[in-house]
Amino acid sequence: MEDLPLIALTPPPPYFAVIFTTLLADDVPGYADMADRMMDLASRQPGYLGVESVRAGSGITISYWSDEASIRAWRDHAEHALARRLGRESWYTAFALRVCRVDRDLFFERPTGQDPE
Amino acid sequence: MEDLPLIALTPPPPYFAVIFTTLLADDVPGYADMADRMMDLASRQPGYLGVESVRAGSGITISYWSDEASIRAWRDHAEHALARRLGRESWYTAFALRVCRVDRDLFFERPTGQDPE
Repeated sequence: MEDLPLIALTPPPPYFAVIFTTLLADDVPGYADMADRMMDLASRQPGYLGVESVRAGSGITISYWSDEASIRAWRDHAEHALARRLGRESWYTAFALRVCRVDRDLFFERPTGQDPE
Repeated sequence: MEDLPLIALTPPPPYFAVIFTTLLADDVPGYADMADRMMDLASRQPGYLGVESVRAGSGITISYWSDEASIRAWRDHAEHALARRLGRESWYTAFALRVCRVDRDLFFERPTGQDPE
């Protein structure tokens, strides 16, 4: 499977997922830049496997990690900790965060019927 | 925490999540009706705890379940099995499906500062 938009090409299970479901306030100065910055910063942390995110203001972002220690290290990253504080104070009216162990997965890609380029 | 849009008010962990990340084809006749029907049907299955879904054509839908047997029973539900076949044949260009055990979670809701109604 080649690179696809949205879908993270994670390795075989087990691995870990952080599901972050957010409701945004009406006015969120600085949020979009910070969200982009955090996506970029997360992708350079040890144990990072990928991310899937659909946001339309409110939204769902799932990051995938090789182990729980990597999730804790990212939680405690200084710049991320600042972003999390701003999130609670300014941007999010509500959120749910869930840490999961992925036990099995399944990927599907429809054959295109086209010759490879 | 009262009813919130998007966020599923799941019970304390452990419980299970099915993360379904989809890329839709350009033309998807019957998809929206079937997706709504499946959301409704899932919500009436044993072990169902809630759903979170953000779809803009492609999207992420996460359903929460009390145990893995309930996830398997829903997978094998006859009407759902038909929908899954149509999905592979007609609607999805690609998807990832992940079954996870949620080990910990965290809910945040900003105080409104308003008197209760």
